[in-house]
Amino acid sequence: MRTTVKDSVDAVCRAAKAAAAAIARADSARKNAALAGMATGLRGRSDWLKGENRKDMEAGKAKGLSPAMLDRLLLTDARIRQMADGIEEVIALPDPVGEVLKMRRRPNGLMVGRMRIPLGVIGIIYESRPNVTADAAALCVKSGNSVVLRGGSEAIHSNTAIAQILRDALSANALPADAVSVLSMTDRSAIDVMLAAEDFIDLIIPRGGEGLIRSVAEKSRIPVIKHYKGVCHIFVDEDADFRQAVSLCVNAKVQRPGVCNAMETLLVHEKAAQGFLPMVAAELTKHGVELRGCPETVRLVPQAKPATEEDWGTEYLDLILAVRVVGSMDAAMDHIRRYGSLHTEAIVTRDHARAMRFVREVDSSLVLVNASTRFNDGFQLGLGAEIGISTTKIHAFGPMGLEELTTTKFIAFGDGQVRE
Amino acid sequence: MRTTVKDSVDAVCRAAKAAAAAIARADSARKNAALAGMATGLRGRSDWLKGENRKDMEAGKAKGLSPAMLDRLLLTDARIRQMADGIEEVIALPDPVGEVLKMRRRPNGLMVGRMRIPLGVIGIIYESRPNVTADAAALCVKSGNSVVLRGGSEAIHSNTAIAQILRDALSANALPADAVSVLSMTDRSAIDVMLAAEDFIDLIIPRGGEGLIRSVAEKSRIPVIKHYKGVCHIFVDEDADFRQAVSLCVNAKVQRPGVCNAMETLLVHEKAAQGFLPMVAAELTKHGVELRGCPETVRLVPQAKPATEEDWGTEYLDLILAVRVVGSMDAAMDHIRRYGSLHTEAIVTRDHARAMRFVREVDSSLVLVNASTRFNDGFQLGLGAEIGISTTKIHAFGPMGLEELTTTKFIAFGDGQVRE
Repeated sequence: MRTTVKDSVDAVCRAAKAAAAAIARADSARKNAALAGMATGLRGRSDWLKGENRKDMEAGKAKGLSPAMLDRLLLTDARIRQMADGIEEVIALPDPVGEVLKMRRRPNGLMVGRMRIPLGVIGIIYESRPNVTADAAALCVKSGNSVVLRGGSEAIHSNTAIAQILRDALSANALPADAVSVLSMTDRSAIDVMLAAEDFIDLIIPRGGEGLIRSVAEKSRIPVIKHYKGVCHIFVDEDADFRQAVSLCVNAKVQRPGVCNAMETLLVHEKAAQGFLPMVAAELTKHGVELRGCPETVRLVPQAKPATEEDWGTEYLDLILAVRVVGSMDAAMDHIRRYGSLHTEAIVTRDHARAMRFVREVDSSLVLVNASTRFNDGFQLGLGAEIGISTTKIHAFGPMGLEELTTTKFIAFGDGQVRE
Repeated sequence: MRTTVKDSVDAVCRAAKAAAAAIARADSARKNAALAGMATGLRGRSDWLKGENRKDMEAGKAKGLSPAMLDRLLLTDARIRQMADGIEEVIALPDPVGEVLKMRRRPNGLMVGRMRIPLGVIGIIYESRPNVTADAAALCVKSGNSVVLRGGSEAIHSNTAIAQILRDALSANALPADAVSVLSMTDRSAIDVMLAAEDFIDLIIPRGGEGLIRSVAEKSRIPVIKHYKGVCHIFVDEDADFRQAVSLCVNAKVQRPGVCNAMETLLVHEKAAQGFLPMVAAELTKHGVELRGCPETVRLVPQAKPATEEDWGTEYLDLILAVRVVGSMDAAMDHIRRYGSLHTEAIVTRDHARAMRFVREVDSSLVLVNASTRFNDGFQLGLGAEIGISTTKIHAFGPMGLEELTTTKFIAFGDGQVRE
């Protein structure tokens, strides 16, 4: 059995690799035509898709999946339309492949530059939501990569059906269907085989909870883009505009508390604490936020509970906020260095020098001045789309768009140059 | 014993990580002053250095190291001067840290861009030449990174002495000495501990033979920049300038045959074969090159021996050249895809369309038109220096200079923007 899983997974990965050269060479018009066909296919075959999705829903109910999980699994007409719309947005993005950068003439007359090229084969490992199948595949195809998708076993019929529609659109546009594959093996060991397929897959992107990502990173022989967690901070400086700071804190905590770029800890300069903390606490409490504070916070804000050491490193993903009064911006940056997750931190200040120093010295995938942490998102930052957020620094740091699914090769144009 | 090695290695790596924030924040003037101190220190303490090197040389002779290995190990006044000169060249390079890229205004007024930042802690694993200690450390310091160096055990006294001089220069310039460390543990297990220190080291760069690199890549829990081998090709197209092609082939094969960017296989369009092959063969034979050819080559070039299948994938690093006549440029590109190593390939042609297609479609860290493969080198391509060449695509592809030792974070300047 084990051998069969290995053989089947390897066959899919090998086919993806074989398709990589053709998809890498394809021009933008052909890739866009295939993407348009994918969108049309999803819309046109939505009844069939919903039928396949029903099999997953029934199996999920029988297995006793939670209502929340069942909801994430469900495909409705609106959700299928959203997937199709998402693909059409990718069509509108500029094709990163073939861009030439830094072309310069060397002293010997050789023209040297770099050309943007696809990475090759991307492996995506994700959990229940079937829309990831279409979203991720569209970004990989647009950036000239093959993709091997391994979704949750509970979504296998939905994912396989979506992939079939995408593959048909590739074939209809003279591109290899194998540039998009869903692993049909729901056996857990299929992931292990995929993570060992270093001859076929160039990069693994896991999308899901911290547990999934750690387990993938531990086992993989292939480079992995990691996104652990988002313990995001806002530091309210002594001379912040307090009204602005309140608005930013409420947005960062309340607008969507269950996501990785929501604020989890608020740091307040001691000179601002007395004026600002009661103001922000009143507003946050109005929105149902539970506050857990340092002793000084608890003194100034009666409704705050005392925070424990554990609160400082916690990603609540909920309407809970840790609050700490700090003696200086340096103390705030030390706190972030110690408890942060390299995800997103913001300063609220009117002082230019401190704003610039915070931006320079804070080690995070996005550092903001006077703006909400909720902007750490590929769409919001202008990438057009994102395939994930990296919180480690190798290859990509922060939201990954189409460019982050590419690399560059050196190119050189000469007229007979030799090395002396 | 094993525990002791683990504790000692971890202590060095932890200290490097602790030093990383200070070296990352240091401005260019301070880093350059430390680098100048390193160069001065190497020159001023050359007698002491040679004394420490003598210990390695004596141990090496006693251990029966080959004359070639002993020569690589030897430090002379000239070689010490070269190390110091190399550091001074790094001073002259622009500091990549702090560069702001792609700063653009979003529709909501948020200014979003990227800022170049150091990676953190770089681990270098290398073989006998002690100059790597100084060269690699200078590039890491200039790019704001801490570095942990693990050289060959046969060079331990030399490497430790060089590192001491570099550390003294850091301290003298109010930078943490621990930003540069040489692992003093010569125990083989020290490498394993280093490769598992993922909490402290961000990137591993192995420098040495394919065996070292494969073993490091296999064991490492930390991302590794890989450079396997260079099976570099020149394709002489049907309408190449034959004199230019001869000059390029001789340079690529003969100028320094023992390096990774030397040509190993020559591909010749069948329409050029009769005119070109005898010409180039005569010249290469004059330079002592042994030719191993396909049947058509052997027919046209009497001195060529028949090539075996194995010859096509071999990195000779010697005055031997595999030669194959191909029916078309597509056949040449198929050959490269099958036997190449993603290192360096060149086309010699006067045809613009074919030159551009070769550049676009050949998957290699450097693709050249009408120039020698020997240009795949950080200095030659204008990076100023190189810490190695990557033949895989994640994070860097091709020669790695200062920029490739950095990444970018997103930065955003707002005036109260919140997410709707």
